[in-house]
Amino acid sequence: MTTVSAPPGATRLVLHEHRFFDSDPAVRRAASELYEGTRTLPLVCPHGHVDPALLAENAAFPEPASLLIIPDHYLFRMLHSRGVPLEALGVPTRDGTAVERDPRRIWQLFAEHYYLFRGTPSGAWLDHELSEVFGIEWQLSGATAQRIYDELDAKLRSPEFRPRALYERFDIEVLATTDAATDTLDHHRAIRDSDWSGRVLPTFRPDALFRIASPGWETERAELARLHGAAVHDYESFRAALVARRRYFRELGATATDHAVVAPTTGWLPTGGAQALFQRATRGDATPDDQRRFEAHMLMEMASMSVEDGLVMQLHAGALRNHDQALFERYGPDKGGDIPVATEFTRNLQPLLNAFGNDPRLTLVLFTLDESTYARELAPLAGHYPAVTLGPPWWFHDSLEGMRRYRERTTETAGIWNTAGFNDDTRAFCSIPARHDLARRLDANYLGGLVARHVVGMSEAREMARALAYELPRQTYKLAPAPATVGVTP
Amino acid sequence: MTTVSAPPGATRLVLHEHRFFDSDPAVRRAASELYEGTRTLPLVCPHGHVDPALLAENAAFPEPASLLIIPDHYLFRMLHSRGVPLEALGVPTRDGTAVERDPRRIWQLFAEHYYLFRGTPSGAWLDHELSEVFGIEWQLSGATAQRIYDELDAKLRSPEFRPRALYERFDIEVLATTDAATDTLDHHRAIRDSDWSGRVLPTFRPDALFRIASPGWETERAELARLHGAAVHDYESFRAALVARRRYFRELGATATDHAVVAPTTGWLPTGGAQALFQRATRGDATPDDQRRFEAHMLMEMASMSVEDGLVMQLHAGALRNHDQALFERYGPDKGGDIPVATEFTRNLQPLLNAFGNDPRLTLVLFTLDESTYARELAPLAGHYPAVTLGPPWWFHDSLEGMRRYRERTTETAGIWNTAGFNDDTRAFCSIPARHDLARRLDANYLGGLVARHVVGMSEAREMARALAYELPRQTYKLAPAPATVGVTP
Amino acid sequence: MTTVSAPPGATRLVLHEHRFFDSDPAVRRAASELYEGTRTLPLVCPHGHVDPALLAENAAFPEPASLLIIPDHYLFRMLHSRGVPLEALGVPTRDGTAVERDPRRIWQLFAEHYYLFRGTPSGAWLDHELSEVFGIEWQLSGATAQRIYDELDAKLRSPEFRPRALYERFDIEVLATTDAATDTLDHHRAIRDSDWSGRVLPTFRPDALFRIASPGWETERAELARLHGAAVHDYESFRAALVARRRYFRELGATATDHAVVAPTTGWLPTGGAQALFQRATRGDATPDDQRRFEAHMLMEMASMSVEDGLVMQLHAGALRNHDQALFERYGPDKGGDIPVATEFTRNLQPLLNAFGNDPRLTLVLFTLDESTYARELAPLAGHYPAVTLGPPWWFHDSLEGMRRYRERTTETAGIWNTAGFNDDTRAFCSIPARHDLARRLDANYLGGLVARHVVGMSEAREMARALAYELPRQTYKLAPAPATVGVTP
Repeated sequence: MTTVSAPPGATRLVLHEHRFFDSDPAVRRAASELYEGTRTLPLVCPHGHVDPALLAENAAFPEPASLLIIPDHYLFRMLHSRGVPLEALGVPTRDGTAVERDPRRIWQLFAEHYYLFRGTPSGAWLDHELSEVFGIEWQLSGATAQRIYDELDAKLRSPEFRPRALYERFDIEVLATTDAATDTLDHHRAIRDSDWSGRVLPTFRPDALFRIASPGWETERAELARLHGAAVHDYESFRAALVARRRYFRELGATATDHAVVAPTTGWLPTGGAQALFQRATRGDATPDDQRRFEAHMLMEMASMSVEDGLVMQLHAGALRNHDQALFERYGPDKGGDIPVATEFTRNLQPLLNAFGNDPRLTLVLFTLDESTYARELAPLAGHYPAVTLGPPWWFHDSLEGMRRYRERTTETAGIWNTAGFNDDTRAFCSIPARHDLARRLDANYLGGLVARHVVGMSEAREMARALAYELPRQTYKLAPAPATVGVTP
Repeated sequence: MTTVSAPPGATRLVLHEHRFFDSDPAVRRAASELYEGTRTLPLVCPHGHVDPALLAENAAFPEPASLLIIPDHYLFRMLHSRGVPLEALGVPTRDGTAVERDPRRIWQLFAEHYYLFRGTPSGAWLDHELSEVFGIEWQLSGATAQRIYDELDAKLRSPEFRPRALYERFDIEVLATTDAATDTLDHHRAIRDSDWSGRVLPTFRPDALFRIASPGWETERAELARLHGAAVHDYESFRAALVARRRYFRELGATATDHAVVAPTTGWLPTGGAQALFQRATRGDATPDDQRRFEAHMLMEMASMSVEDGLVMQLHAGALRNHDQALFERYGPDKGGDIPVATEFTRNLQPLLNAFGNDPRLTLVLFTLDESTYARELAPLAGHYPAVTLGPPWWFHDSLEGMRRYRERTTETAGIWNTAGFNDDTRAFCSIPARHDLARRLDANYLGGLVARHVVGMSEAREMARALAYELPRQTYKLAPAPATVGVTP
Repeated sequence: MTTVSAPPGATRLVLHEHRFFDSDPAVRRAASELYEGTRTLPLVCPHGHVDPALLAENAAFPEPASLLIIPDHYLFRMLHSRGVPLEALGVPTRDGTAVERDPRRIWQLFAEHYYLFRGTPSGAWLDHELSEVFGIEWQLSGATAQRIYDELDAKLRSPEFRPRALYERFDIEVLATTDAATDTLDHHRAIRDSDWSGRVLPTFRPDALFRIASPGWETERAELARLHGAAVHDYESFRAALVARRRYFRELGATATDHAVVAPTTGWLPTGGAQALFQRATRGDATPDDQRRFEAHMLMEMASMSVEDGLVMQLHAGALRNHDQALFERYGPDKGGDIPVATEFTRNLQPLLNAFGNDPRLTLVLFTLDESTYARELAPLAGHYPAVTLGPPWWFHDSLEGMRRYRERTTETAGIWNTAGFNDDTRAFCSIPARHDLARRLDANYLGGLVARHVVGMSEAREMARALAYELPRQTYKLAPAPATVGVTP
């Protein structure tokens, strides 16, 4: 590729071939070789937040700021933390406060603060995206902002940059979205009914139906009844509607459910207890403590239903949502104002694992925001219970050092075969290849370190790298039968 | 050693001379040199779970599966976690469920799943054991399983592989076992009375006598009375019997006690409180909360007795035993179903340390399963209180990365001289050399890193390596007088 | 420098040019180059505990043991932990117990135990201090102790080693002390009124006034009233006096406040609540729980006042002071008997951050002794709230590995521009250059690692190194206007 002339003040954007590998030559050599074995494998995306409408409609993406900045709280929260108002970045408000509407000014402001991302995964992902997806040749900065904007904008209008074209170019094998239990899945249905061969699957996420103390619960219940085509007036009908919705999701290809909780408390309510709480909720009288007990009970129900219908159960714990209440009120959820808390798994999961943990029909994928639980609780649980699999490092820990810590703290007790491989967990469609590439590099680097220290041999490591990048997510999420070569020594 | 022909599908088992050392040449060079200085030092084993009957009777070990797989929960739990039933691995049941009885089938099944241990310390230990203890030349796999079984089986029948011969070949200087307070120590007595010169010592573990809410407590109390030769009908006689049992253990060479608790709560009961709880226990009325307060009191008593009789006090905290109740009911304790919990030391130990922490007669060795306490609580406690010494990384953390984290998080605050050196903590006699070798390599590697970064000089590191491998366990556990060269700058 | 002859048994003290850098050549090369760019920058010291009398009076320092050993609990606690009585080290007692008075014997005893500090930051600092500040050419040991004592003692009598001369030689740009809210700041006033140009600023620390359950509170309140020149008889007058004291501190140059708590609980008391607690305190009836609620309220007040007057608010959490009560009673506070506890920030700080966290006028610098909060709570808080900045690793974590962990766990979520750069936090004036040098080396090494792994480029890293060493502490603590080059990509 050639550029006519360098923009003034610009620096070349060059992604080093060996980026993210340790510089020690023995590690780098092994990592590099291992990465070559996984670099071009198809992308398996069993957990994420891409809007299925993108692929159902296959319309052109919007201009660069609306695509890359305004919806990405990983990015705008960092500028907010340094005093840049979210209004100046065009983040839409719920209370009618005016926000910047000129995308070029938003893009410029972001570019001038892009130095804040040095040493962060967000910076690494965006550089990859700009360079590899969009062919940008200059580092993003105040000096290059407008020129890069022009290039992106032009490309985004071209057919090669439509969602389905990118899906294919990215070599995505399967992409799971995350969908409310009361979602109609119309977009998924439209994709299925189209002549396009991409594989886009829903994931069943019923959290809102379990939050019986929330003001929105009544609406959720009504919507559930509407979709179910029958009254949901007591716990029995509620449970039946959930079973039916799960069946509907499965018919549209779902292989998994997803559940988010602050603390992963589990436990059956006594007989009649669920019904009593349900009735209290219908009267609008449920308390936060009622909700906690109801959620703990519903996690038992979800595990029980998974044993029956085979949906993989994902549990994400430890995020205190909407910590910044003023931010939440003005901008709504998912704006960078969620903060993790310490999380306890050993005692909280004991009721669920005592009931279902040894059942070969259950796969329970656990995610944490509390890294102190990796070696202390999660790896021992995964290294014992057949049902437990460790999800990849999540959210704040989905980073270079975060992934290193995850492998270093889980592998020795749980091995790699009790982990679920990588998932990108993103709503930013264009960042998917960047995230998989980073993960493949870091797993290759971790394994390369084992090779360099003679903990495992090169041929063993090669199998492990392939398992982490490709086979484990496929197997864990039941997205394909296990190939014959997986997990078997030669 | 030569082998006539390679088994089909087999790979050579070669332990690399520099295994587990960082690959950076400066670190590796220093680590390698430091390891050479400790590699052949005798093994000091102040804490472990070897059955003393082994060395008292000196009978041949059983066949390979019964020796290496069936009793080792580190190994079979990993296969269980991937869906292999414990029955198929021959793990005996308490409820009469039939289990596999053909050791060759058990061995084969294990070998086919041995890939699960890649990157784990269990894999590193077993490879070492097969290669260095048994002279096996091929990696264990489905293809080599039967051939390796044959070799092991033949060797295990030979006199060179009897326990006492191995004890000598391993160059064990002293081996402490762990024994219930109500153990008769007949095997220890038999070893003493024999003409064999091996040094095998008991360790006083009275936990069961402190669990006053447990159904087994009454039996324990009766057995204590029987051995004591006097009634144990109130707290005063209970305490006197404990003093007497400690004396008996010391007569048979014990230098330490061992105590396991979930939370390390300590604190005197008010006057009359211990007696009241003891009476409640004899009536069978003690509650779990009663037991917690009694245990907290008994830890104070144990420290007080240690001040008097000089026994080193070991405290292991943070394991929630028998998390998997179905597993416990079918197979019993110590089957891989114990899971750690977060542990608090600073406040919990304050009463004990305020009473005895500055007493030069007390040595309190602390073990944790919660690595977040290393830098936050344990190193500051050890770096202040004369009585406190840090035990080595324990159980799940007794691994390559676990040992690295331990040194990196404790040395800067506590130094190495407030740590107890290594102990192997194993019931698997044949794995003892593997465990010591791994620890010596990793300590050499840690110190080699300090040398390579010019934090300490090579001659200083050499003294530190020797202290960690040999002198500190001997001193901490009072197994030998401190040699003149220890802990003194040249 | 030449020495006539080597003392018998002595080893040269040589600080390696590349000490503390990783030995991997690519990292070392980058680290070394980055360090060259920060090595000679002036020292900015926005938080520490140097006695301002030193610089006000500019008297010669005392002899070596009184300067370096007796007041430094980082040093004597380590010998205490290995059984050396503090009396033998001359640490003064409050109860009249006799202590060693011969400084040469104290120095000798310390030197004989100096090996305990191998691998610790205290050892690294003291070696630097001896070599670079005092020109000592031999390693401290029993063999060299008296000779080194002689050299130090002679130098300490010379004018070049007076405090102000050292301040200038150290190239300190600004030095903040920590001063009780009831301090008269006479020494600061004296420095201002002198013809000396050094910049020494007070920091407002009102903790003692908030401890309403403490026996000393009444005296503090009386002293506050005396200095304020008006009665402090109710909450309103108490609050007004605090506002006035803050103004007085600002007049003498203060730019910050400092607050120490065990748990960082925050929250407004209900109307009238503060007055009720204040009255209870004046009657001597306040309970520890009253104090906790009062402190939580006063942190809200302090943030509110900072919004008004611009003082940067520092919050240090997690030290359980005087854990060893016998030590405290005999020797007083700050003798190495403080032990950290697990600390929760997410929920505890929510009230304060919801009230002031988005206010651009507030800078809240957070310090922790619980490293598990770095990635889990502190980096997410700093990466969202404009007011939150992360203070450097504190106390036990102000070390080689501690600083590495801090950067590895905070940068990826918060970036470096949400951190406050380094502060030395020391009362040991002569150790200031050693501490800054260590921090600059370790930050250079961290950044060198990013360069070697191609995470950031060399020119980016150079700006980051300068920001960490110099610009961020100046900006965070409002000690200078931000230079034009900071935080802006080229």
